[in-house]
Amino acid sequence: MAETRTTDPYRTYLREDQIPTAWYNLRADMPEKPEPMRLPNGKVATVDNIAPVFARALCEQELDDDTAYFDIPEPVMEMYRVYRPSPLCRAYNLERALGTPAKIYYKFEGNNTSGSHKLNSALAQAYYAYAEGITNITTETGAGQWGTALSEAAAHFGLSLDVYMVKCSYEQKPFRRSVMQTFGATITPSPSDTTAAGRKILASDPTCTGSLGTAISEAVERALNVPGNKGRYQLGSVLNQVLLHQSVIGLESYEALAELGEYPDIVIGCCGGGSNFGGLIAPFMRDKLNGAHPDTRFIGVEPASCPSLTRGVYAYDFADTGQTCPLCKMYTLGSGFIPSPDHAGGLRYHGMSPVVSKLKHDGYMEAVAVKQTDVFAAAEQFAKLETILPAPESSHAILQAIREAERCRETGEAKTILFGLTGTGYFDMVAYDKYNRGELEDHIPTDEELQVGFNTIPHIPGLQ
Amino acid sequence: MAETRTTDPYRTYLREDQIPTAWYNLRADMPEKPEPMRLPNGKVATVDNIAPVFARALCEQELDDDTAYFDIPEPVMEMYRVYRPSPLCRAYNLERALGTPAKIYYKFEGNNTSGSHKLNSALAQAYYAYAEGITNITTETGAGQWGTALSEAAAHFGLSLDVYMVKCSYEQKPFRRSVMQTFGATITPSPSDTTAAGRKILASDPTCTGSLGTAISEAVERALNVPGNKGRYQLGSVLNQVLLHQSVIGLESYEALAELGEYPDIVIGCCGGGSNFGGLIAPFMRDKLNGAHPDTRFIGVEPASCPSLTRGVYAYDFADTGQTCPLCKMYTLGSGFIPSPDHAGGLRYHGMSPVVSKLKHDGYMEAVAVKQTDVFAAAEQFAKLETILPAPESSHAILQAIREAERCRETGEAKTILFGLTGTGYFDMVAYDKYNRGELEDHIPTDEELQVGFNTIPHIPGLQ
Repeated sequence: MAETRTTDPYRTYLREDQIPTAWYNLRADMPEKPEPMRLPNGKVATVDNIAPVFARALCEQELDDDTAYFDIPEPVMEMYRVYRPSPLCRAYNLERALGTPAKIYYKFEGNNTSGSHKLNSALAQAYYAYAEGITNITTETGAGQWGTALSEAAAHFGLSLDVYMVKCSYEQKPFRRSVMQTFGATITPSPSDTTAAGRKILASDPTCTGSLGTAISEAVERALNVPGNKGRYQLGSVLNQVLLHQSVIGLESYEALAELGEYPDIVIGCCGGGSNFGGLIAPFMRDKLNGAHPDTRFIGVEPASCPSLTRGVYAYDFADTGQTCPLCKMYTLGSGFIPSPDHAGGLRYHGMSPVVSKLKHDGYMEAVAVKQTDVFAAAEQFAKLETILPAPESSHAILQAIREAERCRETGEAKTILFGLTGTGYFDMVAYDKYNRGELEDHIPTDEELQVGFNTIPHIPGLQ
Repeated sequence: MAETRTTDPYRTYLREDQIPTAWYNLRADMPEKPEPMRLPNGKVATVDNIAPVFARALCEQELDDDTAYFDIPEPVMEMYRVYRPSPLCRAYNLERALGTPAKIYYKFEGNNTSGSHKLNSALAQAYYAYAEGITNITTETGAGQWGTALSEAAAHFGLSLDVYMVKCSYEQKPFRRSVMQTFGATITPSPSDTTAAGRKILASDPTCTGSLGTAISEAVERALNVPGNKGRYQLGSVLNQVLLHQSVIGLESYEALAELGEYPDIVIGCCGGGSNFGGLIAPFMRDKLNGAHPDTRFIGVEPASCPSLTRGVYAYDFADTGQTCPLCKMYTLGSGFIPSPDHAGGLRYHGMSPVVSKLKHDGYMEAVAVKQTDVFAAAEQFAKLETILPAPESSHAILQAIREAERCRETGEAKTILFGLTGTGYFDMVAYDKYNRGELEDHIPTDEELQVGFNTIPHIPGLQ
């Protein structure tokens, strides 16, 4: 059984003193910067513009395209030490089963109670709010990983947290709700009657099962209505600040691979809003941009049912359905796009991180869209071989890693593949059950269906 | 925030080459051995007697009180390397919150998909069955951690697995069932009409919600009925072989503490059948028995609703309700004892590992029984501080560790406490919800209720 094994261990753990002490801001090393965030009137957003919504330190990180490193505050480091470094894993069992000469590594971020990489940014965002005297934070959650992570972070820093949970998830994932409540968060199914945005939607459709875009609108409104300017909204993906915090994934991967004498030929991550992918690729993309490793391939993997990178347009668009947030230039399906409710595999957001979008637009990375039935097949294969039951989101990356490794089997190339295993699927068993019963189907939007979403992209004179 | 921190890391991971390559058999170093397993006729059981039920290599491990070390077979080592070593964690956040001078360490076994330490023995048992040409294995599961672990192990070694799941758990924990099915196991709610034992119980009580003892009877019967002598039964706790395999927990803890220059003053583990506790304490108890560390305290923590160690009798008893299995000398409440259905915290078995029972009987360890409402309070405190949502079972140990640390605060003693954090509570949210709603109650059996169970303990002439 051990015949293909090298001396590399199955799991490489860095020492605690190797946890990065600063986040890396890839934007500082991008020769062409992402397009700036803009207000609905077309003007470039300033820190003062967005400070009512986000903690000031986070606003500064959001808009800073020049500072390469931001020191991680000590209280955040303290909590990183509780669950980091995360392991860099060699998928020997998977390699053997595929009969591939490729080496497959994955960075596993699921070994914490939030079950995913989301905790990396949740702790940072909660800390900055706490440090600025904020008492109440709000957010939205769909699948629940971000909400769980922020619940843990809020509990640690003593913040009151209101989570707007997409109603269909609230009903289908009662245990996600329970975990968040155990950490002390208040959970409201969205759309709700607690906000004007929610009441408006309920008035037109009392049975609405919600969307991420709607939950964002409600959470932002709720934060702005906390008395005494003590409320702020926090978001788990898309934003530059989130990719900055998630750079710990890439930095640790980089260091662990260096200890093994490895450098990846291909880096693969799932793409919803881009938080994991953007964090994972950061130091490797730096090496591509500066010519140190020009040939590394980067592949973002998205669901065919919500294909922003592969079928979206690169345009300024709103982050929320209510169209009240600032605009980002990104690959988008339009804030009015709603993926099929049959879609189980997460990654349901209409847009994409401006950083990831810019890299894709400028040709530094590839993107592929995959079917959820293939994703769950890869998830089960991986679970049986590697004994980790992966989150459906993470399994998009697994599928692509398998496909690349199979290509290596055909060509005989011993490539080094790195992918991000963002989390575990313990709260996704309804979807696994559906797959096991053969009831999971793929709904790939037609061009006509996509056009409905595109029609919600704003046309702002002089911008697009 | 870091004021009380020493240079010890939050998490200590041994290197892969430090994973133990042999299991340690504490029985070899016990001056007085546990009483031998016996057949219902009172005769001491031999390997041949029990070989129809267990794989032969496991029978040999079960009955061997002399061999101190058993090499871990390479295919088992290969899988250990996929998820071991498990981290030894310093509970700095908990220490700070308690204001205790004590150092609190915990060995965390929950970072694998089975969610607990059960995988350590599941891989061993499945491997030996596979190596002996067995094609079908059977088992029972209650809370589902053991069933999940064995499902993973069976999938890895290509064995067909039938799991009899206590019916009330089958209905209350559908996602546990889903995980096992994802790994390819067949799950049958017990009592069922697939066995004579199940049909007998259903005939007398068609609405019976099942018990571990009944599920064991069904699983054993099922294993014996596999054609061609190709079926075997496997058990996740109580047995000597299981404690042997779980010694990896203690051996790794011992090594990691040694690297930190530490030795525990107090070792604490939850006790259901004794698999985790017996594995955790093994090398430390050796040091107590041979006089190297005579003053170490060992504390087994059990639920007040199922108090075998603290209120049971030390007697030969059956492992199963059907009274078809061999007898073990152990602390027992009688195979007819059924804990209150309100009891949510696991650890519901009527008996206790013969090794643990012997150590308790001879005065080498202590035992305490705790209330589940206190257990869940400790679980939530721990989750918020250490960001791990613990299994209710593990939380019995957390509670006792907190109590010992609080005692240190009163006395000013800087003791070193080690406890076993056996797993995560992601599939126990129904119980957490109940606790959060204030609906969890303690049901402590009266002496009269215990007597009903004691009346089912067999009286075999010359034995007791």
